[in-house]
Amino acid sequence: MKIGVIGTGMVGQSISARLSGLGHDVMIGTRDVARTLARSEPDAFGNPPFKAWHAKHAGVKLGTLREAASHGEFIVNATHGVGSVETLKAAGEENLRGKILIDIANPLDFSRGMPPSLAVSNTDSLGEQIQRAFPDVKVVKTLNTVNAFLQVNPELVAGGDHTIFMSGNDTGAKAKVGELLQSFGWRHVIDLGDITTARGTEMILPLWVRLMGALGTPMFGIKVVQ
Amino acid sequence: MKIGVIGTGMVGQSISARLSGLGHDVMIGTRDVARTLARSEPDAFGNPPFKAWHAKHAGVKLGTLREAASHGEFIVNATHGVGSVETLKAAGEENLRGKILIDIANPLDFSRGMPPSLAVSNTDSLGEQIQRAFPDVKVVKTLNTVNAFLQVNPELVAGGDHTIFMSGNDTGAKAKVGELLQSFGWRHVIDLGDITTARGTEMILPLWVRLMGALGTPMFGIKVVQ
Repeated sequence: MKIGVIGTGMVGQSISARLSGLGHDVMIGTRDVARTLARSEPDAFGNPPFKAWHAKHAGVKLGTLREAASHGEFIVNATHGVGSVETLKAAGEENLRGKILIDIANPLDFSRGMPPSLAVSNTDSLGEQIQRAFPDVKVVKTLNTVNAFLQVNPELVAGGDHTIFMSGNDTGAKAKVGELLQSFGWRHVIDLGDITTARGTEMILPLWVRLMGALGTPMFGIKVVQ
Repeated sequence: MKIGVIGTGMVGQSISARLSGLGHDVMIGTRDVARTLARSEPDAFGNPPFKAWHAKHAGVKLGTLREAASHGEFIVNATHGVGSVETLKAAGEENLRGKILIDIANPLDFSRGMPPSLAVSNTDSLGEQIQRAFPDVKVVKTLNTVNAFLQVNPELVAGGDHTIFMSGNDTGAKAKVGELLQSFGWRHVIDLGDITTARGTEMILPLWVRLMGALGTPMFGIKVVQ
């Protein structure tokens, strides 16, 4: 399948590599291709520059935001949450229309220091903001409750025996995203309901951040048990 | 141990019965004892009136808010979150001073309809509000991420193999609360850190409410897996 990934950070890199490894035709999109490739320093989190990653994943195409959005039948939003709507607009509404958009982003607000708070929460969510901004796009919020590595390789903890959530208004879109999640190794997927349920999974982030501190690792999942 | 439980709803009833069954000397406190005993109709959630419950749990003493707070060496806040600070003030600051207060309440706001939102979240929490209102009380937030039955009987789902969280500024108080949790059957307790980490567990409520809808039951827990 042709997939356009918007965002070249860790989340974009991780899901692009995985999708490409699964045989999909992936293009990763960035605002300025030349500038993205010119970076030679690690990012703010200490991750190697994009070109070092891309050298190891040459099968993933690199393009502008518009090119990646146009390329994909499926779109993945792997941008920073606080800038997602603006970045997706820069990718071109006409390139997104009618498509399924997997929204992995979290609206983390680092402006007040650590730990981050949420830029939108409680009575609204980033997932809903994106759905309102692009009413013709089928937004499915998922994967935002685990880190970039676990998102696409749930087996990395507890043999994959933990839970991932989905929120979205379109049942058919969620079924297709569910297949993709299954191909990553997710066996326990809970469909929470419409896109307003994204409030719940985005609002788990403050707990996630504190758990990372308490456990001393970002490599953990949560399993819903009955 | 002498324990004062503030709040006569399902959460107050459930933890009072369990603590009494474990041999503790429990007094449950209410604003107006006569009125609480006079109720003969089920509450808004369809639960039987307090006196029906109390007839089956005669070992639990009933008193005013002030009497229950004064009775307890340990205090449990089992009130509705939006009214917790005011109700605890009515119990008398002098009756709480220096004591450990287990805060189970969630600041659920039903004023905008269902599902509820949170009256405080993101950059503050109910746990912090209570700690600020009563600086001499050792507030430990816990048990607020599962329902009233599971709080005191974690074995009711998955053989008790799920996680409960604790937040609080006082390490000694958390150690004592940890022993109480263990006596309920909790084997997997995570100390998230100071009382600001209560934001994380209170903010899980929107996910909890949607999970209850998706699963069709409130009898579920979440297990942190590594």
